[in-house]
Amino acid sequence: MTPRTGRRPGKSGSRDAILDGARASFAENGYDGATIRDVARRAGVDPALVHHFFDNKQKLFVAAVEVPVDPAELVAHILAGDLDSIGKRIAYTFLRVWDGQGGTSPMITLIRSAASNAQAARMIREFVSAEILGRITRSLKVPDARLRAALVGSQLIGLAMLRYVIALEPLASASPEDLAEMVAPTLQRYVTEDLPPHR
Amino acid sequence: MTPRTGRRPGKSGSRDAILDGARASFAENGYDGATIRDVARRAGVDPALVHHFFDNKQKLFVAAVEVPVDPAELVAHILAGDLDSIGKRIAYTFLRVWDGQGGTSPMITLIRSAASNAQAARMIREFVSAEILGRITRSLKVPDARLRAALVGSQLIGLAMLRYVIALEPLASASPEDLAEMVAPTLQRYVTEDLPPHR
Repeated sequence: MTPRTGRRPGKSGSRDAILDGARASFAENGYDGATIRDVARRAGVDPALVHHFFDNKQKLFVAAVEVPVDPAELVAHILAGDLDSIGKRIAYTFLRVWDGQGGTSPMITLIRSAASNAQAARMIREFVSAEILGRITRSLKVPDARLRAALVGSQLIGLAMLRYVIALEPLASASPEDLAEMVAPTLQRYVTEDLPPHR
Repeated sequence: MTPRTGRRPGKSGSRDAILDGARASFAENGYDGATIRDVARRAGVDPALVHHFFDNKQKLFVAAVEVPVDPAELVAHILAGDLDSIGKRIAYTFLRVWDGQGGTSPMITLIRSAASNAQAARMIREFVSAEILGRITRSLKVPDARLRAALVGSQLIGLAMLRYVIALEPLASASPEDLAEMVAPTLQRYVTEDLPPHR
């Protein structure tokens, strides 16, 4: 028999309804278009309850899509330090987080969704633009910060595809430290070195 | 009424049966495990007919999976030239081929399959290992050629994911030339410069 905890049954029911409403709203409206108000309406609750459980849209997305880490924290960690060593900090943080997830990580699921479903791709693109690239762009005192952040992202997502999703050797079995050292100069160049002239 | 062409109906029927058999065999056995003999058996034809239509396993794969370019040709083009400018040659070739495909390219379909389906991932991984990385490894006179080729692949597949599949700005709208110039030094470093010590 399930022990009675004294918890009101409505609470977790509301929380689950909010998460369901959030997934539907993000899928339909993208990250930019979704609102706490729309999520609350779908869940049949007051918007204040959504704020109570999840604080803001970013945290609601992280919970609803089961992003296993808080991107805001990671970005803060990466930006807190010398710009001359940011390439290493990004590479080590990225590989440590992914390797820590194990084989069937929610992040692999995210990459799979983004690759196979246009709605998911839009939702993830808008989230990454607003909450990851946006934060980095505002903090980095370099020209073309958004382009630089996207180039960094291209190296990281490609590494994740080959190492974790496609499992291509020798990338799949390399140690995270070895790989971090190999891609760190690439990331450093994208963040701080001169880019070629472009439109 | 369909005009009679005098063509024997068996011909294109056999060709299609071979392609169907090839897709089934590659999916079930991977690229390494599939054989012309098994494909012929599935198609109910003589192995000689498979060779007649498709020459070898590599070309059969390219046709069956609708790879829109011949990787062997691309690799040959990239390797035919000065090693000091191989980064640019890879970047320009890659972006030119992808941009030339248009929005719903079979290569996007390939990436989607690899991301969402373990059988497809294995098949593509084995094909890329044998026919692309293998060729490059045999030709490059550098240590760690396989690792270097895989690192190059990680930058390229990540660029393709963000530019073509997820359509992240500003990568999605950048000119192919601008992007090629930005990633070329990364590719050049992976191919010819010293890698950090590793196991």
